[in-house]
Amino acid sequence: MVLLERAMATFRLALIQLQVSSVKSDNLTRACGLVREAATQGAKIVSLPECFNCPYGTKYFPQYAEKIPGESTQKLSEVAKECSIYLIGGSVPEEDAGKFYNTCAVFGPDGTLLIKYRKLHLFDIDVPGKITFHESETLSPGDSFSTFDTRCQLLVYPGAFNLTTGPAHWELLQRGRAVDNQVYVATASPARDDQASYVAWGHSTVVSPWGDVLAKAGTEETIVYSDIDLKRLAEIRQQIPIFSQKRSDLYAVEAKKP
Amino acid sequence: MVLLERAMATFRLALIQLQVSSVKSDNLTRACGLVREAATQGAKIVSLPECFNCPYGTKYFPQYAEKIPGESTQKLSEVAKECSIYLIGGSVPEEDAGKFYNTCAVFGPDGTLLIKYRKLHLFDIDVPGKITFHESETLSPGDSFSTFDTRCQLLVYPGAFNLTTGPAHWELLQRGRAVDNQVYVATASPARDDQASYVAWGHSTVVSPWGDVLAKAGTEETIVYSDIDLKRLAEIRQQIPIFSQKRSDLYAVEAKKP
Repeated sequence: MVLLERAMATFRLALIQLQVSSVKSDNLTRACGLVREAATQGAKIVSLPECFNCPYGTKYFPQYAEKIPGESTQKLSEVAKECSIYLIGGSVPEEDAGKFYNTCAVFGPDGTLLIKYRKLHLFDIDVPGKITFHESETLSPGDSFSTFDTRCQLLVYPGAFNLTTGPAHWELLQRGRAVDNQVYVATASPARDDQASYVAWGHSTVVSPWGDVLAKAGTEETIVYSDIDLKRLAEIRQQIPIFSQKRSDLYAVEAKKP
Repeated sequence: MVLLERAMATFRLALIQLQVSSVKSDNLTRACGLVREAATQGAKIVSLPECFNCPYGTKYFPQYAEKIPGESTQKLSEVAKECSIYLIGGSVPEEDAGKFYNTCAVFGPDGTLLIKYRKLHLFDIDVPGKITFHESETLSPGDSFSTFDTRCQLLVYPGAFNLTTGPAHWELLQRGRAVDNQVYVATASPARDDQASYVAWGHSTVVSPWGDVLAKAGTEETIVYSDIDLKRLAEIRQQIPIFSQKRSDLYAVEAKKP
């Protein structure tokens, strides 16, 4: 999930670490309530977590899936417009032509759908005695990128890690991406529910382009705020100029059309 | 610095955290002595640190530079053969056709030069009040890759971080590369010399493909040992199959000929 933010030199980011229940309408109502609260606190960009309207689990995805636009994304559009914010709609199970996707919709301050991103790399994992999970049992992967700028300044990942990969990789991967690309990195996780079939790690986090953790939630439902300073980012890019040091004569990353 | 090791399912790696002085012949003698000690302890692959025969500093590079083959690399070839090990020769300032390079030479157990790699991305940094250093003042960058296999299992980086980037990025980048690529990652630093013009971070480290720190030196001269288990690596690649999940239909990394 890549978000480009050019207009503001500093702005407030909010991550909604939602407690996701099995009642979709309740998830939607509480998500919109917390988005409104974040906007009241001055947030200009707000993100919901992965799978925010549905328990995370392969059996739930088809059952909770909707078209986009549909009930959930309509509500996101309305609350983005009402609060005049950019709203990264975490993700929802999407149904299209009989297939299911893990899809993130992003809305602008006028309620317009800016981006619809279907998860490209499904989460299939098998760590014996720890965790086995295969999104691909019921989901299909997307096959296109959302538009992005190569000088992106903030990466926001709605994500639901677990009690195995969470302690090992959640913070590490965020700090790694932040330093590798000299960007702010933020993650929005569902709150932890120890009774769920898939127990999310929680710990929604914001990391600076230097790799420092700026803000980090515990495991319970909360809103994480961080004031993102793009002047600081510009300084870091000047101090360690990895972009101008790239050897474009020797290598390149190529995006292909499917 | 990329090293492929296929023959052995487990083997001992040793990192020589050398105290580098201003006397080249002394650096060579002590480096070879520590390599012999590591071999005695069963190490099959041994790495020296970046700039192991010369103080790290732009004014020193031209002064200490040699041809390859030359005095220093000849000694490395001899000790690799004597001990029957793979020896990653950290790096030395190399002179060729009036230009200077930061060059790593790797030798096989028969003393053969396997790889000569000239640092591609020079270290130019300017963090006000903390550290300013520009390798490019006296060094030229290399312009070719060393051959490598895309299913590399161990990455070894001879490196000399400092007291600014060391605490912020040294361990983070190693753990990030390990998890991103599911490889063992090892770094060999010079020991710290608080009187030097450039004070190296030390803390030579070995990281598992899961991102765990397996071994880590302090700041003084020492040898770091780690038994590298390639069966464990194969397990991790099976548990989280990121290679088979790559979307080669959508993106690729391309190596260009200069």
